[in-house]
Amino acid sequence: MDFLEEPIPGVGTYDDFNTIDWVREKSRDRDRHREITNKSKESTWALIHSVSDAFSGWLLMLLIGLLSGSLAGLIDISAHWMTDLKEGICTGGFWFNHEHCCWNSKHVTFEDRDKCPEWNSWSQLIISTDQGAFAYIVNYFMYVLWALLFAFLAVSLVKAFAPYACGSGIPEIKTILSGFIIRGYLGKWTLVIKTITLVLAVSSGLSLGKEGPLVHVACCCGNILCHCFNKYRKNEAKRREVLSAAAAAGVSVAFGAPIGGVLFSLEEVSYYFPLKTLWRSFFAALVAAFTLRSINPFGNSRLVLFYVEFHTPWHLFELVPFIVLGIFGGLWGALFIRTNIAWCRKRKTTQLGKYPVVEVLIVTAITAILAFPNEYTRMSTSELISELFNDCGLLDSSKLCDYENHFNTSKGGELPDRPAGEGVYSAMWQLALTLILKIVITIFTFGMKIPSGLFIPSMAVGAIAGRLLGVGMEQLAYYHHDWGIFNSWCSQGADCITPGLYAMVGAAACLGGVTRMTVSLVVIMFELTGGLEYIVPLMAAAMTSKWVADALGREGIYDAHIRLNGYPFLEAKEEFAHKTLAMDVMKPRRNDPLLTVLTQDSMTVEDVETIISETTYSGFPVVVSRESQRLVGFVLRRDLIISIENARKKQDGVVSTSIIYFTEHSPPMPPYTPPTLKLRNILDLSPFTVTDLTPMEIVVDIFRKLGLRQCLVTHNGRLLGIITKKDVLKHIAQMANQDPDSILFN
Amino acid sequence: MDFLEEPIPGVGTYDDFNTIDWVREKSRDRDRHREITNKSKESTWALIHSVSDAFSGWLLMLLIGLLSGSLAGLIDISAHWMTDLKEGICTGGFWFNHEHCCWNSKHVTFEDRDKCPEWNSWSQLIISTDQGAFAYIVNYFMYVLWALLFAFLAVSLVKAFAPYACGSGIPEIKTILSGFIIRGYLGKWTLVIKTITLVLAVSSGLSLGKEGPLVHVACCCGNILCHCFNKYRKNEAKRREVLSAAAAAGVSVAFGAPIGGVLFSLEEVSYYFPLKTLWRSFFAALVAAFTLRSINPFGNSRLVLFYVEFHTPWHLFELVPFIVLGIFGGLWGALFIRTNIAWCRKRKTTQLGKYPVVEVLIVTAITAILAFPNEYTRMSTSELISELFNDCGLLDSSKLCDYENHFNTSKGGELPDRPAGEGVYSAMWQLALTLILKIVITIFTFGMKIPSGLFIPSMAVGAIAGRLLGVGMEQLAYYHHDWGIFNSWCSQGADCITPGLYAMVGAAACLGGVTRMTVSLVVIMFELTGGLEYIVPLMAAAMTSKWVADALGREGIYDAHIRLNGYPFLEAKEEFAHKTLAMDVMKPRRNDPLLTVLTQDSMTVEDVETIISETTYSGFPVVVSRESQRLVGFVLRRDLIISIENARKKQDGVVSTSIIYFTEHSPPMPPYTPPTLKLRNILDLSPFTVTDLTPMEIVVDIFRKLGLRQCLVTHNGRLLGIITKKDVLKHIAQMANQDPDSILFN
Repeated sequence: MDFLEEPIPGVGTYDDFNTIDWVREKSRDRDRHREITNKSKESTWALIHSVSDAFSGWLLMLLIGLLSGSLAGLIDISAHWMTDLKEGICTGGFWFNHEHCCWNSKHVTFEDRDKCPEWNSWSQLIISTDQGAFAYIVNYFMYVLWALLFAFLAVSLVKAFAPYACGSGIPEIKTILSGFIIRGYLGKWTLVIKTITLVLAVSSGLSLGKEGPLVHVACCCGNILCHCFNKYRKNEAKRREVLSAAAAAGVSVAFGAPIGGVLFSLEEVSYYFPLKTLWRSFFAALVAAFTLRSINPFGNSRLVLFYVEFHTPWHLFELVPFIVLGIFGGLWGALFIRTNIAWCRKRKTTQLGKYPVVEVLIVTAITAILAFPNEYTRMSTSELISELFNDCGLLDSSKLCDYENHFNTSKGGELPDRPAGEGVYSAMWQLALTLILKIVITIFTFGMKIPSGLFIPSMAVGAIAGRLLGVGMEQLAYYHHDWGIFNSWCSQGADCITPGLYAMVGAAACLGGVTRMTVSLVVIMFELTGGLEYIVPLMAAAMTSKWVADALGREGIYDAHIRLNGYPFLEAKEEFAHKTLAMDVMKPRRNDPLLTVLTQDSMTVEDVETIISETTYSGFPVVVSRESQRLVGFVLRRDLIISIENARKKQDGVVSTSIIYFTEHSPPMPPYTPPTLKLRNILDLSPFTVTDLTPMEIVVDIFRKLGLRQCLVTHNGRLLGIITKKDVLKHIAQMANQDPDSILFN
Repeated sequence: MDFLEEPIPGVGTYDDFNTIDWVREKSRDRDRHREITNKSKESTWALIHSVSDAFSGWLLMLLIGLLSGSLAGLIDISAHWMTDLKEGICTGGFWFNHEHCCWNSKHVTFEDRDKCPEWNSWSQLIISTDQGAFAYIVNYFMYVLWALLFAFLAVSLVKAFAPYACGSGIPEIKTILSGFIIRGYLGKWTLVIKTITLVLAVSSGLSLGKEGPLVHVACCCGNILCHCFNKYRKNEAKRREVLSAAAAAGVSVAFGAPIGGVLFSLEEVSYYFPLKTLWRSFFAALVAAFTLRSINPFGNSRLVLFYVEFHTPWHLFELVPFIVLGIFGGLWGALFIRTNIAWCRKRKTTQLGKYPVVEVLIVTAITAILAFPNEYTRMSTSELISELFNDCGLLDSSKLCDYENHFNTSKGGELPDRPAGEGVYSAMWQLALTLILKIVITIFTFGMKIPSGLFIPSMAVGAIAGRLLGVGMEQLAYYHHDWGIFNSWCSQGADCITPGLYAMVGAAACLGGVTRMTVSLVVIMFELTGGLEYIVPLMAAAMTSKWVADALGREGIYDAHIRLNGYPFLEAKEEFAHKTLAMDVMKPRRNDPLLTVLTQDSMTVEDVETIISETTYSGFPVVVSRESQRLVGFVLRRDLIISIENARKKQDGVVSTSIIYFTEHSPPMPPYTPPTLKLRNILDLSPFTVTDLTPMEIVVDIFRKLGLRQCLVTHNGRLLGIITKKDVLKHIAQMANQDPDSILFN
């Protein structure tokens, strides 16, 4: 099994849409490592090689951090500029976005920092006025037009150059990390096109986020950079370690939360995550976060996307509304997953899927037309979330902070609870409409042929619901501060309730309901606020949300999409709970023909070629003899084909009647017989076996933990059958009353 | 294999100092869970039972959090009081510690908040004065006397009631979590005695901390509370999940760092850590942290042990001194581990180990006598660390902050760099002496027969070194701010260098060098400061320290102690790098007698009893016949003995000549033969097998990931031998040129 000295090219590699053999890959890496270590004692050069090999992992992490941080910064800046482009343009320099444009202006006051003469809306440019119904219609028209243009560009680019660039990419990355091969999914074209189209998709104002796709972008960076290092280029298992770290870096730049990113990678994305990878992931995540901060795309020197600072502690009683938000989040999550999957299935199975461009344009048009009149849908979703999280300060001029100002006293920046003013009431109405729009449109948006993340829309839904509930609670507490539940801790004129905190808790609940994240969710949210104070509300909401959502459907959105696409993903979180045995799952079934085996020393090249052409199995067990059925090893179809072809071409005299030997020594041959073909080098001499009476729960555990592709089944020492990963997945699907044929790949 | 319906008591349990079979335990839990789920459809009562069973895990976590948080608070308060008792007593109420005593006093000014008439040093009480050489001697004498008394009480209690209460407990907990059984190690006596003696040991002023033992205390809580829940009491695997969470809660209360605690448990302590446990651990850690905070033992409403807030950013160039600190930390770690292990080995092998009380008294006496004259050794180690981490503010009156005050201007609380005054110079000298004392005495302290943690002494060593370097850098920058390296970022009168940050980085480096923690270390430190700003220095130091220490010796202190004690711990972090095969490790060896096997249908009770009495193996393979050597299953010695005894007692007519059947059906017997004994129910029908040519690296991986106790070896379908966990560990030790006989248990 020494693949290092393997002369035949192709042996030991995998076909597209196949599963890797973790055990073999890890073995190969250990062999490589051993060789380098042994050589390092021989010469100084080899020693340097050995040291540089050891540090190449760290160097790779550094490069991934730098590249993905830079790309995230680039995407942030471009998306910001293009989002503003829908509303107008800066005459001081077209490359400035609205905020930058007015920063550079001298004609701007602190109160009206959004308005400056340099920034021209489209109506100002076209009909030279910003007032009146006609100007409104011009702006409306231009808004929709730009949105359609961006969306059209995005979907066309994806369709033409990189079909893999669509969606969030997280389901596929999960599958790839579990050992599946999808060539090109993390390639350079996907990277380029995804980066460009992500900016376009976000700018088009569709209800989607850039957080999920950023993970995909970071993983592309990781995969491409792997090519610079032999250690990672040639080994599928080692490369997956790097990809796990890249995923952490992706989340780290998406939210500015390096610890949360590492935990996200550990909890949600990764499959094989040794502790060494944990430490390296942390390093990559940190480098990425600091690279992004030094680019400073938000212009506030903050690392995090939504920086919030609350001043009021929460009260134990408030856990009740927080749990209500948790229930809402769980319900939304379950509803979203069901309807989105149903819609995606319809897209897959009907004519709908054939017109991705039309679909995107229609959804964009509807979104843009409905979004423009309402300022909360018009602004970008991340801005909306920022505003909802925000605690109203003294200088806030937004409608959400338009409280009636009875008390002009402010104690150290804190504002007491006040009755809501006109602005707040109208904001509530608009937010309620926004909530409905977001809920409905997101279901149709996620899964279209453009890059689309789900974190931001989910968080927006939760944040709106939370803010509504928070303002409601605040007004209740203000008008009824003599009620029993309030009067113990909330006197008149005190600042009892922070609607921004409710928005944050709601966002966590909805995100949790959709993705079923737990620890990583709370840690990401914790990194946003930076204080342990608010972990308890977040945790209460996240726990409730997960329980409620789990009760309505076990799968998170990513797992549901994996299943929809039929990828061979063996979920590590779910326990297999049925009492079946290995003999119930193995092939051949009871009445099937016997298992196709090769014998170690009695088959000719022709026999084997007949078996190869008559069957489609990806590997064959080798036995001592058909009678004894005693197992010797396992040989892969691909390796067998390559070796026989190679032997026929290069090895003198190997013909159809040559006998194939899998034994260590072939016996002396009588003269004038054709030369034998020795294939022990491609034989896996340590195939995994289980007995036929092994419970399937143990078999599933073995497949999961060791990353097997197949496992042989024996009874009292005789070979009886074989179980492949696909068999296991089909069996699991069958037991869960799902269609076993939905598992498409091996 | 249905152990639920197993009528014979004792079958399926384990002996003390044996390893559990993870696969079997997890199977049993799944069976139990399946039964409850199936029953829940039958009646409402069963449904309630099923729901309560599902939530019992969370309830248990809540209880563990509450109990371990409360115990930690109790320990903190008592240790604080008893530490102060060595110096004097409060006449306002003997139960007040120094700080509390003076809080309640009216005769106290802010500057002299340590001095109040209510607090009397021993000299004041005995000879009514606090001045002069005689008073000093009286205080000195009392200090040493109290220290000796506390230490004597601690070691006597440990020796008399709970020998397992000594040490930090983390090596043993690691071993237990990996599947070993040490009865009583986490029992109620250990809990009670460890709690009491921990307070005594900390108060005696020895160079030890309470952080490691707090993990042990929390694990005891977890283990004891497990007894209230059937689900956890009866299943060794499930109980270990709870213990992992309890370890997280322990670290959480030790440092006030819940996230760091969970990561510590994940990275350092735990073996089997499914994601469900991660989420529950987080909950337990959070509950524990908040319980501790509501007890508020430090009197400052802070969650964390060492709260620090720095105001100055660090400069890139400062990475050089940080890396120097990392190298120091690595060197200290490696030195400490070597010398401490050598000393502990000496204690184990020579007469020294027979006089634990004398040893403790001598070390205490030396520590106390050397500590009293130097104020930095006299104060408790955690106070010392607090003071070293502290950034000098305007109102600081400590010697470490005694800078010459040329500039009376302060910009917003920030102090510019200033020349060091008399106080700082004398503090430097005293700190240097403290450093030497701590380094030497800690080596002899850790491993004595009292509860002793290593976190605090390690951190103290690092913090002192860091502060020394920090002050040095600060003075260098002040006097040479025109040097090239300084003048770009450090102008005169600016605040460039924060010595407290250096102390913190040093503490992280030394702790990392000793324990080889990585992510959890950085996260714990991050939770202390609460800002991402200082993660990079911490990470640089932790990385350097780990690399340096690893270069000098691969093992952390806990692993070294595990090896010293011969526990069967299969390290999950180290890759097995040698190219040996299963046949090189399996028993019997080449020239040994054949493997002892049982046949499935031809051995009498007497035959089996002879084999049992003649061998000491803990289990026997069962084969079809001795000739074919085809494997049927595996039976455990303990189960076999219990079953035969039970049959002889209860089953009519089973005598020595009865034939034992492991087959499904026993053939009809001729009349007048003794009745047969059917033992298929105790037979493991799915033993794990590997081929003789399987590389050991894969075998080690299987043992690790599946948690096996033994694995059978076959060649071409015939049983050849057996590999036990002990064989694997012995082989690993042999390959690492260590004594294979150091592995004591199976």
